Amino acid sequence: MKLELYSYFRSSASWRVRAALALKGLACDYHGVHLVKGEQLAHERLGPAHLLPALWADGERVTQSLAILEFLEETHPEPPLLPAEPLARAYVRSLALDIACEIHPLNNLRVLKYLKNTLGVAEDAKNGWYRHWVEQGLAVVNERLLAEGRKGRFCCGDTPGYADCVLVPQVFNAQRFEARIEHLSAVMQVFEACMALPAFADTHPSRVPDAE
Amino acid sequence: MKLELYSYFRSSASWRVRAALALKGLACDYHGVHLVKGEQLAHERLGPAHLLPALWADGERVTQSLAILEFLEETHPEPPLLPAEPLARAYVRSLALDIACEIHPLNNLRVLKYLKNTLGVAEDAKNGWYRHWVEQGLAVVNERLLAEGRKGRFCCGDTPGYADCVLVPQVFNAQRFEARIEHLSAVMQVFEACMALPAFADTHPSRVPDAE
Repeated sequence: MKLELYSYFRSSASWRVRAALALKGLACDYHGVHLVKGEQLAHERLGPAHLLPALWADGERVTQSLAILEFLEETHPEPPLLPAEPLARAYVRSLALDIACEIHPLNNLRVLKYLKNTLGVAEDAKNGWYRHWVEQGLAVVNERLLAEGRKGRFCCGDTPGYADCVLVPQVFNAQRFEARIEHLSAVMQVFEACMALPAFADTHPSRVPDAE
Repeated sequence: MKLELYSYFRSSASWRVRAALALKGLACDYHGVHLVKGEQLAHERLGPAHLLPALWADGERVTQSLAILEFLEETHPEPPLLPAEPLARAYVRSLALDIACEIHPLNNLRVLKYLKNTLGVAEDAKNGWYRHWVEQGLAVVNERLLAEGRKGRFCCGDTPGYADCVLVPQVFNAQRFEARIEHLSAVMQVFEACMALPAFADTHPSRVPDAE
């Protein structure tokens, strides 16, 4: 299957897919799309939402990072990103959604722009908004990792997978905005275990072709 | 499998699960949790995120509505909520995520409260924020329904499923906030086809045990 990825180096949703491809050992053609310059808005390969990432698989477009992860899992099952048992799969998916639905959408670029440009929110208050959602959201993830008995070196046992692909970019972003997350021991342990792996280290925003 | 659902009548994420349970013909014990009164904050059955919905399945908690839909699909495959083919499944999941990640998180109660109470955004501007994201987001969904060749009476063909469970509550919410969506013909067609089915009509916010 020929895979082409449309990505921006700092887009955390794009990094989810870069990490998943790397964990599965899948090569892709990498196309950088510059979000801050607005290149996505007129880009014909991204679809009507004009959002990153987009994966093209044998000429068919797949959008939304979590749908791309599920698609990769279904078309390239080995190594798996999800555990086998339904409750464990629900745990992993719900952790990923705790980030993808409760943190990331509030803090992406178009939302921060709306706060600033349309609502006239000051820079400090805008950064406070960012940190509020990421600190509150990652505290929930940390509590779940500690309480639900499924964490090993990674979010679920000792194999990196679906939830780790979502956690790592969010932690990177949180650090970039100087959110207070260092005390979230389980989150930080998982982050560091992941960053020791080539699948995460080699797909880090500083290491991709469009890095600045 | 004994199923217990923690839900709030107006919570659109809760309605997704109510509809999915109904489409699969699954009975559950219904527990209303009053979001506006803050009952979720001290509720021990919801988990660390204190969000609705939560499903308990034989004494195990599953959170995040889309993870619950996947869990129901895996544990009760018939009738399926997802099509069989990976690209079609990716289309359905990405449509659902276009709503669950790009619209709903920006417009839920805790976010609107933060805008008002912490950022001091006026009522008109707050309602403008709400309508902006829902109008822009549902326009994307409409364009995809029209362009991608998979829509039938429902989001994917002539069988109601996963994406419809997410679309219907979002349209209901949009109408409640008087967003301009009546011109989104494909979205409205799907909404009306769904509302003609008992699985959606009988799980409507006005029809559940905690309705006001």
